[in-house]
Amino acid sequence: MSHLNAEIIAIGDEMISGARIDTNTAWLSRRLAELGVDVHYHSTVGDTLSHNTDAFRIAVRRADIVIATGGLGPTRDDLTREAIAESLGRPLQLDEASLKHIESMFSVRGRDMPERNRCQAMFPLGASPIFNPQGTAPGVDAAATRADGTASRIFALPGVPDEMKTMFDASVAPAILSLNHAGRHIRHSVMKFFGIGESDMEERLGDMIDRSRQPRVGITVSSATISLRISAMADTVAECDSMIASTRKEILDRVGDLYFGDGEKFEQQHAVEAMLKERQQRLVVIELGNAAPLGDWLAALGDSPVIAGGLSLADSGELARFTRQPIRPTSADAEGSDQDTRYEDCFRVVREHFNADWVLLVDRYPDLTAVDGRVTPAVPVTFQVSGPNGQIVSRESRLGGHPSIVHPRIAKAALMLLRNELKQSAS
Amino acid sequence: MSHLNAEIIAIGDEMISGARIDTNTAWLSRRLAELGVDVHYHSTVGDTLSHNTDAFRIAVRRADIVIATGGLGPTRDDLTREAIAESLGRPLQLDEASLKHIESMFSVRGRDMPERNRCQAMFPLGASPIFNPQGTAPGVDAAATRADGTASRIFALPGVPDEMKTMFDASVAPAILSLNHAGRHIRHSVMKFFGIGESDMEERLGDMIDRSRQPRVGITVSSATISLRISAMADTVAECDSMIASTRKEILDRVGDLYFGDGEKFEQQHAVEAMLKERQQRLVVIELGNAAPLGDWLAALGDSPVIAGGLSLADSGELARFTRQPIRPTSADAEGSDQDTRYEDCFRVVREHFNADWVLLVDRYPDLTAVDGRVTPAVPVTFQVSGPNGQIVSRESRLGGHPSIVHPRIAKAALMLLRNELKQSAS
Repeated sequence: MSHLNAEIIAIGDEMISGARIDTNTAWLSRRLAELGVDVHYHSTVGDTLSHNTDAFRIAVRRADIVIATGGLGPTRDDLTREAIAESLGRPLQLDEASLKHIESMFSVRGRDMPERNRCQAMFPLGASPIFNPQGTAPGVDAAATRADGTASRIFALPGVPDEMKTMFDASVAPAILSLNHAGRHIRHSVMKFFGIGESDMEERLGDMIDRSRQPRVGITVSSATISLRISAMADTVAECDSMIASTRKEILDRVGDLYFGDGEKFEQQHAVEAMLKERQQRLVVIELGNAAPLGDWLAALGDSPVIAGGLSLADSGELARFTRQPIRPTSADAEGSDQDTRYEDCFRVVREHFNADWVLLVDRYPDLTAVDGRVTPAVPVTFQVSGPNGQIVSRESRLGGHPSIVHPRIAKAALMLLRNELKQSAS
Repeated sequence: MSHLNAEIIAIGDEMISGARIDTNTAWLSRRLAELGVDVHYHSTVGDTLSHNTDAFRIAVRRADIVIATGGLGPTRDDLTREAIAESLGRPLQLDEASLKHIESMFSVRGRDMPERNRCQAMFPLGASPIFNPQGTAPGVDAAATRADGTASRIFALPGVPDEMKTMFDASVAPAILSLNHAGRHIRHSVMKFFGIGESDMEERLGDMIDRSRQPRVGITVSSATISLRISAMADTVAECDSMIASTRKEILDRVGDLYFGDGEKFEQQHAVEAMLKERQQRLVVIELGNAAPLGDWLAALGDSPVIAGGLSLADSGELARFTRQPIRPTSADAEGSDQDTRYEDCFRVVREHFNADWVLLVDRYPDLTAVDGRVTPAVPVTFQVSGPNGQIVSRESRLGGHPSIVHPRIAKAALMLLRNELKQSAS
């Protein structure tokens, strides 16, 4: 298998000035890796022609595949077409079919195409347009030949992430696949995990995350949730799917205890929602202390009849005041164990108020206002789950880390406990 | 004033593979602009020596100042020291003072320095260390001379954002200032605004945001909150401060109606908290529908006695059920006006339950589960504020936009209404 390498160029003053964080490049890097392409360089330039031309010249020299994003709009700041033409030493010329497409995009909205949009139909000699179903700006696909006779291929896409991603998947990925692995297919599957750090995950997966493995298993982490993206390449789609199925099985053998579902956007709350729907039961969350992310996450599930609501209060004293119930005396031994019944009366009242079957309590999110960016030490947090039978399961955990993930991590640990209890209850 | 230009190089496999989004580079770009330095290029490379060397060689050729982040750790993946040495054609040599500092960082933790950390005291010939108060890895400050006799200067910093930022502000910024504007001082002030789009803000500020203005006014937007960062450069700190004061006044003349406070991390909830503390009054928020960010934001203020809590429910029917109060009949005319009293009874009960003086209601956050990345049309949202006197102020707004900011924008619009009502109440 030949190994192509790539450079990604992000174009725009808003990026070079630091006003906007570029997320297109990271997305493209992950996609290219799945296509078996090694990304060696990322470059960013502003809307200055000489910098753009310089970037394309260097990229064509050192990369087999050059993917650019941005600079394809109709204004005089949009210089990508010109920069490619100049770096390749070719003139720009009008593509009639692209011009017709752009005109038609305006006419469906009942408008005439402004003259300035005409430039979006200009292409470096020999280049072809990349179809853009969502916007007016077509992309540019240009083949270059280096002094030594070897080839480089430029794909320029719009900077708008939705348009860029659609065009990459629809046009650029198949073109790269046919450059690199003609006639082959590629398929993906994303599995989600919670309850372990990234390095422990890597250790348990061992050689499964080797870059050379087929299917490839890529690992990404977002606020303590781990995604494994499996990418299989084969001669038929069926072969891809069967490779993915056996890799999934192998992954579940190693880390199945931490698995909670499939799909890039699938989170633990979606798993909880599905289990509650199956049981036709409703959940309320009580969040004490200095955060209340679960109330927000659960509300965001959409108009879900199984989410009864969320309650955020400063501490257990306020919970007692709110419910007008005593906090029951609990022995120190029982704290954080299943004998910890201190909130039993409070839960009864909250359950009635919210018309809920399940109560999930987080006691309590730590105060991070004084932390100012530094890693926070692990603090003990109590999680309690009470199901329809009224019994209480209590756990104490010590959770710390970078302040930006401490609160979400605590919320996710609470959801993990709830999932386990839901699993054990009859559906 | 001479205009220096810069290139920023981010180093690390986690960046080039797309596993992690690089935020250091954008931060550095903004800081460099404040120092009067034009950033022309960003580059990213993985932990591969030849790519690193190539990146430094190109950067030294085209940039007056080269700032690199990452690759300074003690493992064999950390190649920045070696890459700089190789790109400059100089050997690495041990710096005794740095070695002693690294050893002392270990000894205060009661440990011996592992042998592998010794490489962190190696510097290209002629380079000097940049002091790192927070970690073991010192940075590298290396002057380079190009073939044509002109100079370029490399500053290599760790990739850990907190360490990088501290070292940049403490050591690199003064060094650049003395390169560029010897003997001059620079001071900053950040003002925060809400209630207007970025382009409208730019229009109202007019020539104030010109890059060549002194003091410079930089604009950044985060989830509909606008920050203006004023950077003044002058011969004395007092002169900087007086320039900042007059620019602040000019800004307030143009957009003072939208201003809510000062400081990078200051948000509207901090302004609300301060006003409540002044009045010794407590606030509860009721969030209906498909989000509940305010409960989370207010809880995160720290152990604040003025935050009584948050309540998240699906809709007004659930609020009526929860409070066991009727929703009062309201004429269609009165909806969203100050005659809209439909929740008056509900508010009374919620106020009692939470022991609160102020109630803020959002009715309701839209369901974005079906949106899938597309810009959502503006939907009507009702905001209600009820103060200690029990009177209700109601507003209806239509808010839409990119799905990632629709919910926070609605929450922020609610806080803006609350701020206005707090302002009008006696403190």
